[in-house]
Amino acid sequence: MINHRGEEFRELILGITQDLKQTFQTQNDVLTLTASGTGGLEAAIVNTLSPGDRVLALSIGVFGDRFSDIASQFGAEVEKLDFEWGSVVHPEALERKLKRDPKVKAVMVTHNETSTGVTNDLETISQTVKKYDKLLLVDAVSSLSCINLPTDLWGCDIVITASQKGWMSPPGLAMVSISEKGWEAVSKSKMPRYYWDFLKAKSFLEKGQTPWTPAISTLYALSSSLKLMKEEGLANIIERHARVGNRTRRGIDELGLSLFPQEAHSNTVTAVNIPSDIDSSKLLGIMRRKYNIVLAGGQQKLKDKIFRIGHMGWVCEEDIDQIMAALKEALPESKR
Amino acid sequence: MINHRGEEFRELILGITQDLKQTFQTQNDVLTLTASGTGGLEAAIVNTLSPGDRVLALSIGVFGDRFSDIASQFGAEVEKLDFEWGSVVHPEALERKLKRDPKVKAVMVTHNETSTGVTNDLETISQTVKKYDKLLLVDAVSSLSCINLPTDLWGCDIVITASQKGWMSPPGLAMVSISEKGWEAVSKSKMPRYYWDFLKAKSFLEKGQTPWTPAISTLYALSSSLKLMKEEGLANIIERHARVGNRTRRGIDELGLSLFPQEAHSNTVTAVNIPSDIDSSKLLGIMRRKYNIVLAGGQQKLKDKIFRIGHMGWVCEEDIDQIMAALKEALPESKR
Repeated sequence: MINHRGEEFRELILGITQDLKQTFQTQNDVLTLTASGTGGLEAAIVNTLSPGDRVLALSIGVFGDRFSDIASQFGAEVEKLDFEWGSVVHPEALERKLKRDPKVKAVMVTHNETSTGVTNDLETISQTVKKYDKLLLVDAVSSLSCINLPTDLWGCDIVITASQKGWMSPPGLAMVSISEKGWEAVSKSKMPRYYWDFLKAKSFLEKGQTPWTPAISTLYALSSSLKLMKEEGLANIIERHARVGNRTRRGIDELGLSLFPQEAHSNTVTAVNIPSDIDSSKLLGIMRRKYNIVLAGGQQKLKDKIFRIGHMGWVCEEDIDQIMAALKEALPESKR
Repeated sequence: MINHRGEEFRELILGITQDLKQTFQTQNDVLTLTASGTGGLEAAIVNTLSPGDRVLALSIGVFGDRFSDIASQFGAEVEKLDFEWGSVVHPEALERKLKRDPKVKAVMVTHNETSTGVTNDLETISQTVKKYDKLLLVDAVSSLSCINLPTDLWGCDIVITASQKGWMSPPGLAMVSISEKGWEAVSKSKMPRYYWDFLKAKSFLEKGQTPWTPAISTLYALSSSLKLMKEEGLANIIERHARVGNRTRRGIDELGLSLFPQEAHSNTVTAVNIPSDIDSSKLLGIMRRKYNIVLAGGQQKLKDKIFRIGHMGWVCEEDIDQIMAALKEALPESKR
């Protein structure tokens, strides 16, 4: 380990921050926190909102629900707009709400919903939110660096992501961008905070430090990933994820399986309906033990109803072909 | 990375938890959080206290102040008992307070104060706190696993430590033990929390998981460290730190320098007064560049007044001898 108050660390964190800004497509501040993605979501909320603030939470699955729950937990007056799992946020429903309720201060949304394999139309959502001049908080944990998210162009005030997703690093870091409007909200926010304090993090970053001892080894990993990402180029990475997503969906179709979402298929995770004659835990067990491929089951009400293939970060089309070949063999062995 | 909802991770986290309990010398629950030590301190506070709770914060330096600040930030009614920097908490002063103010709910204390190089007499402090049946929160970030801290024997309700100190691992994990009385406090606590929720962490740990994606690579490091620690044995580790601490203090004396603390010298960090003819930043610079030894300066009001030698974890007496040999050469070169 290196001294996190020394020159070497200064270079490390400033270099990372610079590279992160490129991938966030932002001139805004980007802070790196020692925490899981959920810690990043909490940090975004407690730094920008006050107890009693009216907040509109757009949810299309588990992670939308979580974002909403955190805000409620800290005393925000949350109105949740739920859309059917497997579907997207309908911008017209959002607009109706914003038109009717001028007291809404902020809108929270999940860019890519990992639990259902759906990517929201963040461009349209953000246009609507900005039309009404509200603060926009975006959970981009499983999208950023894989799916296009031009933070500044779309006017996203707070964008949160995490090291273990598209960033190809071990878990343990959350990265958050904050716009000028975001900083205004920070200056007025009254939720209690200490560890997550953005202003403190910003003032330490200015001298090349973090307020608390950072996850140094994970920062080194992130720094290496960012170099790889620079070599490939953001546009190429986004295009590769689109190709990989397409290949996955085609493969699923060729296996005679069906996709869980009806629309807006994610390019980082594919959710597949489990046929009624297949035992999901048998399937996932065979895939893991026999083929060394870890698939995820469904969460909450989707348990045993879907399985999910993650394809973000260090993934290419050949990897998908291997998964499909394995699934082809494993499916007949997984009958109930 | 491995699947943090799978069998491999289950074995990893349950093994770590078992080993941690041995070093904490406890039968209590021990939770591992993805955060810096400061996150662990915040977690301890927001899980056990409510806004308006009367809390006695015992401070002998920067980290005592920090623990107190966090509690204030979340709305506890904190009374701070400050003792001179370089000195210890005086248990009789604590007892006077507890006798006079029956409304005090909890006492917060730093076991080992890194900023001044002082170890509090936690045994006597805890006896006093327990005599008045108060909740005891202990910041053991820079003591646990190096300096004796029998959690159960001394009745410490909440004990917080962090991976990068005596545990010889990269930063990024905070470990917290919770007694039965601690859990009672959790059940009554009304401070807002989500990421830090101990009850959620406990229920996930029961199935070999963590609520949020954990810092897996750092957990692997911690698991390896715990194996090394088991081989050496806790009593031997504590004795080694005592020998290393003694060797350091003797070495400082032989160099004609003086220790900052008047008493209760820490066995994990030694604070040394900087002679008036020595330029502290010159000294630290020479030590770092010429001898590859990173010493720490003083914090806050001790800036440029002391330097500090950390000697916790993977340190033996020969390391100390090297530091002293380097200091002997560097000091004359560091005149103002």
